[in-house]
Amino acid sequence: MKNQNIKVAVDAVVFGYEKEQLFILLVQKKFGKSSNAWMLPGGMVQDDEGLQTAVNRELKEETGIEINYLEQLYTFGNDIYRDSRTRVISITYLALANPQKLQLKPSSKIKEAKWFNVNEMPSLAYDHSKFIKKGIERLKSKLSYQPIGFDLLDDEFPFSHLENLYKTILGKELDRRNFRKKIMSFGILEETNKKVSMGSGRPAKLFRFNKQKYRALEKEGIYFEIKYA
Amino acid sequence: MKNQNIKVAVDAVVFGYEKEQLFILLVQKKFGKSSNAWMLPGGMVQDDEGLQTAVNRELKEETGIEINYLEQLYTFGNDIYRDSRTRVISITYLALANPQKLQLKPSSKIKEAKWFNVNEMPSLAYDHSKFIKKGIERLKSKLSYQPIGFDLLDDEFPFSHLENLYKTILGKELDRRNFRKKIMSFGILEETNKKVSMGSGRPAKLFRFNKQKYRALEKEGIYFEIKYA
Repeated sequence: MKNQNIKVAVDAVVFGYEKEQLFILLVQKKFGKSSNAWMLPGGMVQDDEGLQTAVNRELKEETGIEINYLEQLYTFGNDIYRDSRTRVISITYLALANPQKLQLKPSSKIKEAKWFNVNEMPSLAYDHSKFIKKGIERLKSKLSYQPIGFDLLDDEFPFSHLENLYKTILGKELDRRNFRKKIMSFGILEETNKKVSMGSGRPAKLFRFNKQKYRALEKEGIYFEIKYA
Repeated sequence: MKNQNIKVAVDAVVFGYEKEQLFILLVQKKFGKSSNAWMLPGGMVQDDEGLQTAVNRELKEETGIEINYLEQLYTFGNDIYRDSRTRVISITYLALANPQKLQLKPSSKIKEAKWFNVNEMPSLAYDHSKFIKKGIERLKSKLSYQPIGFDLLDDEFPFSHLENLYKTILGKELDRRNFRKKIMSFGILEETNKKVSMGSGRPAKLFRFNKQKYRALEKEGIYFEIKYA
């Protein structure tokens, strides 16, 4: 086998959803070349660990959080100069999390780990802004073939919270009537007998996910055509 | 930067569709460790070429074919022993082609390049059967969010040919009436005034793709819910 000078890294594109806003998890390192820039959690793969193990380890080391399921997003390696030190390809992973349920505890190598609103990001190291852009594209398209919300909303929530989650990720107003009709037709939402007061309007009914149906649709796919207002 | 002993390869998962059958393009090498096994076209990435360039080069060298658009499929690297010589991760690329329009001209390093029916594959080197399985999964799911057929069918074709393409990739009988209604509703097919005699039935009308609408839907996505018979 010929010699090769390419390094292999993994990076985690972790989005958080909270209070109708989409956030991205970034870190700032204490040492090294890009120590003054913000970047995605990630780093070099070790020889004896799988890619998925590597991204979980890096995420844990740099931010303190553990996420059960990170989905492979994309491998960046067309630009051979994306890291000025040496050629590095990056296998990126995507996750969507609830910041309130995760406590950030970065290791001593990290200056800070922080959630940023995706609309107010600092300037990023390397080509990480491209990674985030790819992640947002994937998130948007996921909405049309998988149900999203289970791990992000409270156990019981008014319908408007689910609607806002979709609106936030898509960055557009939905056709609300059509959205509600579609979502209800999948059978993933159950009505509870509870209501909650919201603002000045009538109290809103609370819903919860039917876990079994939700997980089934997550696997099968939903083919959910989204209509905008 | 720490030393790392991981090599980076690319492999091409190229499916062919012809006569209601799905084929996969495989090669057999003359030299080296796996010279008696069939495998996907592919190989080590060179230091000075992007990943996409690498897979196009390998495909051209090993099979003689050129495919404009290969889509990134998946990066395999969780199993650190997938290559017994040294650790290798593989970035795989997917394409769907018409074997009749491509002439196989393998280089001198290759014993043979050949299309195999996916249901009659030989035993494969490394974990390449996993790559092909992933490719088939992706193809199936692509059918529900992108139109497929433009580069695979004749310029003018009876509707049954498109139906057979979908049936072949999905490996299932379709609800034909629903399929026809859905496809026609996208406006990607145009009727011609021509008919063709097929077997003993009535002559069948010929259709052609509306290229512009087809390409638009390829970008936008179609969210095509497939109903089975």
